[in-house]
Amino acid sequence: MSTRVLEIRKGVLNKNDLLAAGLRGRFQAAGVTVFNLVSSPGAGKTALLERTLRTLIEEGRRAAALVGDLETDNDARRLAASGAPVRQIMTHGCCHLEANMISTHLEGWDLAAFDVLFIENVGNLVCPAGYDLGEDSRIVLLSVTEGEDKPLKYPGMFNSSDVAVLTKMDLAAACEFDLDAAVRNLHAVRPAMRIFETSAKTGLGMRQWIDFLLQPRERRS
Amino acid sequence: MSTRVLEIRKGVLNKNDLLAAGLRGRFQAAGVTVFNLVSSPGAGKTALLERTLRTLIEEGRRAAALVGDLETDNDARRLAASGAPVRQIMTHGCCHLEANMISTHLEGWDLAAFDVLFIENVGNLVCPAGYDLGEDSRIVLLSVTEGEDKPLKYPGMFNSSDVAVLTKMDLAAACEFDLDAAVRNLHAVRPAMRIFETSAKTGLGMRQWIDFLLQPRERRS
Repeated sequence: MSTRVLEIRKGVLNKNDLLAAGLRGRFQAAGVTVFNLVSSPGAGKTALLERTLRTLIEEGRRAAALVGDLETDNDARRLAASGAPVRQIMTHGCCHLEANMISTHLEGWDLAAFDVLFIENVGNLVCPAGYDLGEDSRIVLLSVTEGEDKPLKYPGMFNSSDVAVLTKMDLAAACEFDLDAAVRNLHAVRPAMRIFETSAKTGLGMRQWIDFLLQPRERRS
Repeated sequence: MSTRVLEIRKGVLNKNDLLAAGLRGRFQAAGVTVFNLVSSPGAGKTALLERTLRTLIEEGRRAAALVGDLETDNDARRLAASGAPVRQIMTHGCCHLEANMISTHLEGWDLAAFDVLFIENVGNLVCPAGYDLGEDSRIVLLSVTEGEDKPLKYPGMFNSSDVAVLTKMDLAAACEFDLDAAVRNLHAVRPAMRIFETSAKTGLGMRQWIDFLLQPRERRS
């Protein structure tokens, strides 16, 4: 019985991989760079995106976002205040986004009209790791309030991510956050992983992060 | 194909429910009260348990813990410092604990020798909601750093929990935490849910929380 379940799940994953490959082709053809943001619930994905979108739009960049949540369209409403086109994906209980949800929610959008598309995944450090969404880069956020050990405890997610963004750095002292330990643990799971230190509240590190987003693909990796 | 997957998953869930019912019978026969702690990664389950176990052991209570993580035995080592018997459950990628993992890791323990058994679930606000572990009460933690909206965004987990513990209250001012909004959102998802306000760092609210744990079953609900 358990073998049977595994076989069927593998089938589901392969179907997602195929759809994701198709999405990746569409994104590249349209010239839009796509970032898939993953993290724990409450690590600050929406706050980082709010400030990022606002800056990009102010600087004349054409940015858009898809936002995943089990329920509510709170995040889409928050992000839409930036002026960027934003759509909410409600998963109604599903613990991750899948490529077919992305396809469905792109309908009617002209991808060639965007420079950058963000996908804010469901807050979950486990399940979204297994689902390619056709992104150029997977970005994992780690807030200083969560503890430095999270990369070791959730290696699948941190290893499958290309870049890490430390968030809420303004709270680092209050949390007695050990930056060296966090960097060591990130690099233990994903050697040489690029790491940004940010605070969406104070603006710390936002310029470097945004410059990274705007780099040509070959310089980003 | 998708119908097939759903049927098999339903089968898996029912098997868990049966095993959980058996566990519940064993726990009641042994006179041990069992609490299943669920939350986001980094919400402070281990820190709350460290202080809780230390106090219980100092007061002569017989407390033990099972600790779930995808990888590492960091948490079991942290909790064992209290002097309580502690065992680590490594799920190796599985995003939640299941009743059969509990059974396996109880082997060789005399349950009648414990007053209280804690199960620290995998940090995940989605998937553990669907898996009964035979507990008396499911306790959901919400740290003030995560934001007040989490109950609305993860209603399955908050609705299926009996009690909420707000953690890291020492950081509430720095995070501009809106306690009224958090309570309103918790009660929107689970009306009249009992809520504790705590800080494992300062000790705030720990006495009320521990007194609750020690209440007879009929007064706890």
